[in-house]
Amino acid sequence: MLVDELIKKLDEKKEHIIEIRRYLHAHPELSFQEEETAKYISDFYKNVPVDSVETNFGGERGVVVTIKGSKPGKTIAIRADFDALPIKEETGLPFASKNEGVMHACGHDGHTAYMLVLAETLAEYKNELKGTIRIIHQPAEEAPPGGAIGMIKAGVLDDVDAIIGIHVMSNMKTGHIFYRSGNTQTGRSYFKLVVQGSGGHGSSPHLANDAIVAASSFVMNIQTIVSRRINPFDMASVTIGNFDGKGTFNVIKDAVTIEGDVRTMSPETREIVESEVRTFTEGLEKSYKVNCNLEYKNDYPVLYNDPEVTEQVLQALEQAPIPEVEAILETPPQPPSEDFAYYLEKVPGCFFYVGAQPESGEAYPHHHPKFDINEKSLIICAKAMAAVVASYCDGSEG
Amino acid sequence: MLVDELIKKLDEKKEHIIEIRRYLHAHPELSFQEEETAKYISDFYKNVPVDSVETNFGGERGVVVTIKGSKPGKTIAIRADFDALPIKEETGLPFASKNEGVMHACGHDGHTAYMLVLAETLAEYKNELKGTIRIIHQPAEEAPPGGAIGMIKAGVLDDVDAIIGIHVMSNMKTGHIFYRSGNTQTGRSYFKLVVQGSGGHGSSPHLANDAIVAASSFVMNIQTIVSRRINPFDMASVTIGNFDGKGTFNVIKDAVTIEGDVRTMSPETREIVESEVRTFTEGLEKSYKVNCNLEYKNDYPVLYNDPEVTEQVLQALEQAPIPEVEAILETPPQPPSEDFAYYLEKVPGCFFYVGAQPESGEAYPHHHPKFDINEKSLIICAKAMAAVVASYCDGSEG
Amino acid sequence: MLVDELIKKLDEKKEHIIEIRRYLHAHPELSFQEEETAKYISDFYKNVPVDSVETNFGGERGVVVTIKGSKPGKTIAIRADFDALPIKEETGLPFASKNEGVMHACGHDGHTAYMLVLAETLAEYKNELKGTIRIIHQPAEEAPPGGAIGMIKAGVLDDVDAIIGIHVMSNMKTGHIFYRSGNTQTGRSYFKLVVQGSGGHGSSPHLANDAIVAASSFVMNIQTIVSRRINPFDMASVTIGNFDGKGTFNVIKDAVTIEGDVRTMSPETREIVESEVRTFTEGLEKSYKVNCNLEYKNDYPVLYNDPEVTEQVLQALEQAPIPEVEAILETPPQPPSEDFAYYLEKVPGCFFYVGAQPESGEAYPHHHPKFDINEKSLIICAKAMAAVVASYCDGSEG
Amino acid sequence: MLVDELIKKLDEKKEHIIEIRRYLHAHPELSFQEEETAKYISDFYKNVPVDSVETNFGGERGVVVTIKGSKPGKTIAIRADFDALPIKEETGLPFASKNEGVMHACGHDGHTAYMLVLAETLAEYKNELKGTIRIIHQPAEEAPPGGAIGMIKAGVLDDVDAIIGIHVMSNMKTGHIFYRSGNTQTGRSYFKLVVQGSGGHGSSPHLANDAIVAASSFVMNIQTIVSRRINPFDMASVTIGNFDGKGTFNVIKDAVTIEGDVRTMSPETREIVESEVRTFTEGLEKSYKVNCNLEYKNDYPVLYNDPEVTEQVLQALEQAPIPEVEAILETPPQPPSEDFAYYLEKVPGCFFYVGAQPESGEAYPHHHPKFDINEKSLIICAKAMAAVVASYCDGSEG
Repeated sequence: MLVDELIKKLDEKKEHIIEIRRYLHAHPELSFQEEETAKYISDFYKNVPVDSVETNFGGERGVVVTIKGSKPGKTIAIRADFDALPIKEETGLPFASKNEGVMHACGHDGHTAYMLVLAETLAEYKNELKGTIRIIHQPAEEAPPGGAIGMIKAGVLDDVDAIIGIHVMSNMKTGHIFYRSGNTQTGRSYFKLVVQGSGGHGSSPHLANDAIVAASSFVMNIQTIVSRRINPFDMASVTIGNFDGKGTFNVIKDAVTIEGDVRTMSPETREIVESEVRTFTEGLEKSYKVNCNLEYKNDYPVLYNDPEVTEQVLQALEQAPIPEVEAILETPPQPPSEDFAYYLEKVPGCFFYVGAQPESGEAYPHHHPKFDINEKSLIICAKAMAAVVASYCDGSEG
Repeated sequence: MLVDELIKKLDEKKEHIIEIRRYLHAHPELSFQEEETAKYISDFYKNVPVDSVETNFGGERGVVVTIKGSKPGKTIAIRADFDALPIKEETGLPFASKNEGVMHACGHDGHTAYMLVLAETLAEYKNELKGTIRIIHQPAEEAPPGGAIGMIKAGVLDDVDAIIGIHVMSNMKTGHIFYRSGNTQTGRSYFKLVVQGSGGHGSSPHLANDAIVAASSFVMNIQTIVSRRINPFDMASVTIGNFDGKGTFNVIKDAVTIEGDVRTMSPETREIVESEVRTFTEGLEKSYKVNCNLEYKNDYPVLYNDPEVTEQVLQALEQAPIPEVEAILETPPQPPSEDFAYYLEKVPGCFFYVGAQPESGEAYPHHHPKFDINEKSLIICAKAMAAVVASYCDGSEG
Repeated sequence: MLVDELIKKLDEKKEHIIEIRRYLHAHPELSFQEEETAKYISDFYKNVPVDSVETNFGGERGVVVTIKGSKPGKTIAIRADFDALPIKEETGLPFASKNEGVMHACGHDGHTAYMLVLAETLAEYKNELKGTIRIIHQPAEEAPPGGAIGMIKAGVLDDVDAIIGIHVMSNMKTGHIFYRSGNTQTGRSYFKLVVQGSGGHGSSPHLANDAIVAASSFVMNIQTIVSRRINPFDMASVTIGNFDGKGTFNVIKDAVTIEGDVRTMSPETREIVESEVRTFTEGLEKSYKVNCNLEYKNDYPVLYNDPEVTEQVLQALEQAPIPEVEAILETPPQPPSEDFAYYLEKVPGCFFYVGAQPESGEAYPHHHPKFDINEKSLIICAKAMAAVVASYCDGSEG
Repeated sequence: MLVDELIKKLDEKKEHIIEIRRYLHAHPELSFQEEETAKYISDFYKNVPVDSVETNFGGERGVVVTIKGSKPGKTIAIRADFDALPIKEETGLPFASKNEGVMHACGHDGHTAYMLVLAETLAEYKNELKGTIRIIHQPAEEAPPGGAIGMIKAGVLDDVDAIIGIHVMSNMKTGHIFYRSGNTQTGRSYFKLVVQGSGGHGSSPHLANDAIVAASSFVMNIQTIVSRRINPFDMASVTIGNFDGKGTFNVIKDAVTIEGDVRTMSPETREIVESEVRTFTEGLEKSYKVNCNLEYKNDYPVLYNDPEVTEQVLQALEQAPIPEVEAILETPPQPPSEDFAYYLEKVPGCFFYVGAQPESGEAYPHHHPKFDINEKSLIICAKAMAAVVASYCDGSEG
């Protein structure tokens, strides 16, 4: 069977995946600035018998590769992201970042590495493939508005029947694969509130209007959104990550800028939080006679895995001969947001997780300066995705 | 001189003052309910050669007594209040209250006692008096709106040129008299805020609107009125003395009633506080989507002692031969409010303080169940007021 | 089959169930005071061929009835509660409460009614029954600590292999039955906090220690337990249902009593909330120099339906010939707490829900003065419980 | 008389004062960095017949000049400060600051200008002077710990009997002089609080400890220091001028730095505020489980004008023939703090105010980028100080 052949072939290339990953790890680039990485990716395909390689897809640095099987069938998209983070690496790895202050601290280097080798392998077997495989190398997953939106607008999902993605997870055991049907990762909103009072001398508060006090009251009051306004059985988180009231101790601060992060697991909850943030902003203006400027943006949606596709993925994984996989388990919902969710708003699909906990057992969280993955996870990614693709193509009638 | 004669005469009657005081102390009556006390007062005058005794003055139980001197001159009003408080007496005095739960815990028994004996004495000397003396026995000083308002409306200050009042003070040394010119006692405002949310089951806050949380936020926010809105050199105090959110632990409270007390020392500050309480109420409605019903009343004004009259009082006291008086001192402003302030809005005058600290030195504050005064203070009150009246009449040209 | 016979027999008695329910509805009694109701229940069994009727079970008014089948088998307990609530009924029903201020506003009248008739029916068929059926008529479900605890201590679960309970639900469609495996209803904790400051005159806050301000700060601060301390994917609710700061507007309040209600869906979350409430109490003492007295009690645990028993119940219900049942559906977790959870801590079991929405479609929530149920739900309860019991006995090997 | 001669002489030099002031205005230097200004001052004295010029006094750039009268007498110190502020000037004056971002926005240029010319004049008349005059040119009045402390430690007040200072005031009418006896300007305290929680991902608050929420709670809680802990008749102001919680919207902030400014008018109030800030810090640690690092420093004390010296100053001013002076008035206490207060802790003295409102009437407050003074105020400063010095010397017996 095709899946067995693909898996066998991939196994031979597993060192290559690691080489690529290490190269990318040493050369990270920030979201929306991934020039060299995009070039590296498109260069990789130069001698690979794919059907097309489109670069600068969506106006950004997306690379979209098409492999057409010899027989008619459905179109499946598979996606790997390739941007890095503004973090100063502290891993001490021999292949640590050479770009000071930029780091692959979320595993996107691994995603890209396995995907390139998988694409090459699929291309080699395209005579045996049904349907079409669209490989999406996506930039800018980490920074809003995210790279997915632009690629979707540029048509990356045209004619796509389903889309699949994988994330390596440093906090999940290597050898385990995790999946979830339905709402799986949080949706995210962002807001920025400028509270404008008026400055003055610290000794004469009555002649000024203290923006720090007003903003502090706002921070306390909005705690009640989660504690009183949201169904306790629903998920919501409202974080003020930035309270910029930097000033001089003896001068009453005229203005404060606050930035907030909202996570929810349903569109209804998302709307309640937005409405409440707006309400408390109006209340703040009234109560403290400040002027408020609120910018509120919903970005990454709730990531929704289509139950049918997820079931197909689960079956493909369970049937695939991947010796490295010890268990395939359901996961509870995941707190982070992910711009893969935009694809899933358009076409059914599934985003699943491959355990990548380092062998030492000591796992630093994603986005940590000491974040690292177990590189054994990468061949699992490749084989798992191969199994899903092969299974999907097999079931494909076009 | 008249003042010497009056003082000598009063000295002979000092035991009588104490007798009256003890009788009144044993028979206290609440504000606006002082039936027996008013009768006691008017009965006292039955055989006293005053020119008129008007009872039920101002629709309440005020008693106004007029003594006309034989020579023309100005009209001076002198006032003593006679109501008691809803306090259960714990003094253990032999003449303690016989009305369970009612107590003369502010010294008004003493005010009335000295005033009756002083009035009798003045009447005896009316041939030597110039001008007219109006003695105001006022009910209901303790409870808003106070008894003064009604008496003023009924004309008690008609033709009055100046008004004088005394308060005995348990926390000031007996033998000392204290005075202050200008703003001397706080003005008071009262507000009542009903915060209406909606009730519900404790486990489902999102289906209710928690009035206790909204009201607590209000309490915290209005702390900034004094801390940020008032000139730090000005006086203001905002107290929430009642937060009635009594309910059942597992039921979200639908409504809370808050009552507040505001003290200020100037009309400007009074206005700022009122405006801010109204603003925070509107802000609360907006922020927490509750309905608020705010009742806000300015009651007793700032007590303002006319500088000229105060200077006259001071000179009269300094020149009077009162051996019991050791010192006449300026006092800082006094926190409590006093409805004598209403009289002072209409005519110039002075309200001053006679030390009445018990000999033991242990002084319970006014309104305390163990409050007591040194009865020696009463003859001082009588003599001091006699000196002021005699001096005023003397300087009087009509 | 036995189940068919039981169901047929019950169908003949459905009017009797309604009669009983209406009688009980008219004669409600408060938790821990259900004297007449307990007597009514035990009287009912006088001519019923059960094996034993134990009254005053557990020191309270519990009635425990035992029916022994003719063949050996397991022991199944089935429970109905019979207390009412301190609510003034406003339904206008012909059989409305005759006890002013007391009302069956939660359906326990219906629970008892169906259970009596079911017990009678089971007794009639005891020759065909395997194992033992223990019928628990439980008092005091509504008021902590609840009636279950005492009955368990008195041995009501001795030798019991499984326990089943039903609740009628006014907000679920009549004809639907709902079930859930695992954690199903919230656990509850209760706390009472006395905040002791010191009183004083409203105009002199510096001489007092304002308990209302301290308590308001506490209310605001504990909002962060749910908003910041609990995993957003977990359930928790913390409600202050009582803020007793009743006082006089111009007197600084010396002490405030607060009572709170906590709901959680796991023992871990329950512990976090308790620890945080204790921490904020200590912080309050430190910050505001008040003395705090905190009483904290975990009462009804999280209600946990045993997955195996729940599966058995589901199968029994799906196979039972109950024409009134249109659908058997999984329910999301339910916010209220229920003292049936205590039984489930001791033996495996299942608590499930029978829809009882009034035909008008207008459903008042439980504990509402206009709460009512569709009486058609009662025969469904009886038949459903009969099916479960019969199925359990059938599978029973003793 | 001497005073007449001094005033006449000064009148001839009034243009020179303005020239010096404009030169200094164009060349402002920040506190503790006034190298050129100090040199300018000491250079000025090169040809002036003073008795000594000490530079770098107190380790900083202080210049102390001694003029010994021909007759024995007391020693009077007179002080002018000469530092500028980190403000970008926006006056558009022809002699505006040439040091970008530095500005004489508080009038110290004027203080120094009049003092130099006055010193020269006094030196010219030293044969007629009794006693000794010590002229203190003080750096660094604007920045804690202030220049006065160092000069006092270095002995600037040794043998000094009294000290006098003047401040020009842009918000007081030119031609008016203001004085106050007793506590006149606020004392100041400074605190810096680092609130250390722990960072984390915005979607998982339970794994972090949000320092922004803790710090906001602190800001709200400390409002109650002024509103509830301080006698409403006392002055206190607590301002948080810096709330540095700058961070990324979706990252929970690990630490926040707060800086506060405290103003009081008595040592007792100063102590209460410090104690309360410390208490609320401990309470914050307890409540929110953060680590707090509090640095609390009392700097400039309450400025206390000796009543006797103030009375002498008043008489000297009232008797002096200064046609430019229209009125000499008592001022209410002034909110700002002033390091002249350190001198007044050591020797009796008086700090008074010379009106300097621009002729346009439009007065920008001190420390404003458009701050300016009416230069006519400078000759008033010189003459007024001459009158005070002459009067003091005259009354001087040594």
